[in-house]
Amino acid sequence: MTEGFAAELLDANAARMIADGVHFPDYARLRQSIAHWEGWFEAWAQMAHEYEVRAEEALARGSSVTAGEMWFQASIMWQYAQFLWFDYPDQRAEGQRRKVASYRRGAPNFRPPAERIQITFEDTVIPAYLRLPDGVARAPCVVLIGGLESTKEESYHFEAMCLRRGIATCAFDGPGQGEYFVARPMVDDFERYTSAVVDYLIGRREVDCDRLAVLGRSLGGYYAVRSGASDERFRAIVAFGAMCDLCYFEDMAPLTQRGFRYVTGIRDPDEAERAARSMIDLRGAVESLDRPLYVLHGARDELIPVSQAHLLDHLTPLAPKKMVIEPDGNHCAHNLYHLVRPAMADWLARQLDL
Amino acid sequence: MTEGFAAELLDANAARMIADGVHFPDYARLRQSIAHWEGWFEAWAQMAHEYEVRAEEALARGSSVTAGEMWFQASIMWQYAQFLWFDYPDQRAEGQRRKVASYRRGAPNFRPPAERIQITFEDTVIPAYLRLPDGVARAPCVVLIGGLESTKEESYHFEAMCLRRGIATCAFDGPGQGEYFVARPMVDDFERYTSAVVDYLIGRREVDCDRLAVLGRSLGGYYAVRSGASDERFRAIVAFGAMCDLCYFEDMAPLTQRGFRYVTGIRDPDEAERAARSMIDLRGAVESLDRPLYVLHGARDELIPVSQAHLLDHLTPLAPKKMVIEPDGNHCAHNLYHLVRPAMADWLARQLDL
Repeated sequence: MTEGFAAELLDANAARMIADGVHFPDYARLRQSIAHWEGWFEAWAQMAHEYEVRAEEALARGSSVTAGEMWFQASIMWQYAQFLWFDYPDQRAEGQRRKVASYRRGAPNFRPPAERIQITFEDTVIPAYLRLPDGVARAPCVVLIGGLESTKEESYHFEAMCLRRGIATCAFDGPGQGEYFVARPMVDDFERYTSAVVDYLIGRREVDCDRLAVLGRSLGGYYAVRSGASDERFRAIVAFGAMCDLCYFEDMAPLTQRGFRYVTGIRDPDEAERAARSMIDLRGAVESLDRPLYVLHGARDELIPVSQAHLLDHLTPLAPKKMVIEPDGNHCAHNLYHLVRPAMADWLARQLDL
Repeated sequence: MTEGFAAELLDANAARMIADGVHFPDYARLRQSIAHWEGWFEAWAQMAHEYEVRAEEALARGSSVTAGEMWFQASIMWQYAQFLWFDYPDQRAEGQRRKVASYRRGAPNFRPPAERIQITFEDTVIPAYLRLPDGVARAPCVVLIGGLESTKEESYHFEAMCLRRGIATCAFDGPGQGEYFVARPMVDDFERYTSAVVDYLIGRREVDCDRLAVLGRSLGGYYAVRSGASDERFRAIVAFGAMCDLCYFEDMAPLTQRGFRYVTGIRDPDEAERAARSMIDLRGAVESLDRPLYVLHGARDELIPVSQAHLLDHLTPLAPKKMVIEPDGNHCAHNLYHLVRPAMADWLARQLDL
């Protein structure tokens, strides 16, 4: 890594980090203080520790709202500590573990709370969080899928947008993602795991399973379209970032390439790359999709070329579609989060009769 | 103004602006594009217009949550358009007017809604907003007072913190503030206006008037302590920034000096300064205060010296007190908003038996 790499990474991801929950003063403090990529994990971990202390203190004095919020802040600090931190597998694993643990500690005190649910599937347990909007007996629900380097814990603020609009949320980690990665690395049939989540939701009286949608972000956009196409119980599908295949693999940033190799769980880099390329392919899986599909993509996406959004459009000729290509948008149009995220939540609300 | 003044002002107020509601991408866009102080009003006004259009579009398609949020964004853009913009009185008045109008348009669609209330007092009408936490029949309430260049519209996000904790909020403009400035410039008995707001709240069954508090920000911190000392119906008082007098007037930034002159409504600068200095003096008004007082001040406050917090401590010997002097805090510790604001809301909740 070049000397300025940490700063570059912070600049490139400023809006994403803030949108997902990093407080601006924390971001600014880090941007000022971080000199080398080598200090990345430790700088974020230090802030995570501080939030953990604040969370415990808040809980001790009975301030449950603050306790929940401070645990969430600790969680998002751990998320970015381990973000792209492939060279130190022990620290990466520690970051993942503590991110999961912090979020889980805070979840009962979120407003509304996030209920931890564990869905037995084959020989594994799929971890998820269910959140229900206040004052609704039976709410429509959106199933949320993370991406390559984002998990169920990072949809916290997007969940709030859905909840304000009367939509319940169920965010889960599937194969290759977050805490489920140890149970299952990347697979070529992610949709079976999404359907297992729906099977679970059917049993919850607070959820109106005639009004379900699925939304996935970045690589999760790929999973969401696969899942939506294969499971007719989804009335609407959102690709918060489009992805159809990995034909542009060699053009991606080295750490992103590494991320795709990492989630396969395969050690040999060439073998891992071949596996990722062969597992990620939408052709043949989505052509019959005839339910509403929302596709958001940044025309200046630096990770996944906008041509993937056009290819997705081409592969889904039967789906009533809303294509949103943001001319100035970066990856997932995160730099325009204040505009594109409410728009997705509004579209979901309309599709789910709210 | 020096050439870089607009950038300096944005740098100095980054956290405050973002804490009060300016989205980070909007802040970043402005920070990159604004070259001269002369372009300040127009740059913010342009973004305000864009939000007004988005708000109307959202309303037209039935997305009421987004409509409320976009009107709020328009409001905060108008706030900063007219912020310290004394050289162009017509534009300053326009900014104030449109800030008020945008907020008012959005208020019914906030979650929870902000009810516009108008309190007849002597020959005037005091404008205020009442917000009630969801799912509570009778809630404690905090009366919120703005400062020299902040009004009832800027407490939107702090209100959300209170509401999440079960506290209703009532923010109003008093003499010299926001839309009430035209009815009354600065007075030496602001507490009478606060008490008029309490008189109104007594008549609202949704508010538990045995559990009232008052919080004021910056110059509002001065008003809050005066109001709390004179009206025993307030069980707890928060100075979100301490102020006792203007003995440091000549050391303040020129535009802040100008602000204090402006709110007197007196044209002659020397006369205005004398009037402001004589009206702002806590001595004799607060010494008997014996109810809980929370004082927050930044040790590096660049507008109001931290000695004012120590003076406030000295002037209120009978009040059970929580003094929070943030060593790295700037004005009102806005640069640490993510920590100091939840702490104030938590303290209020405890004082109000939540």
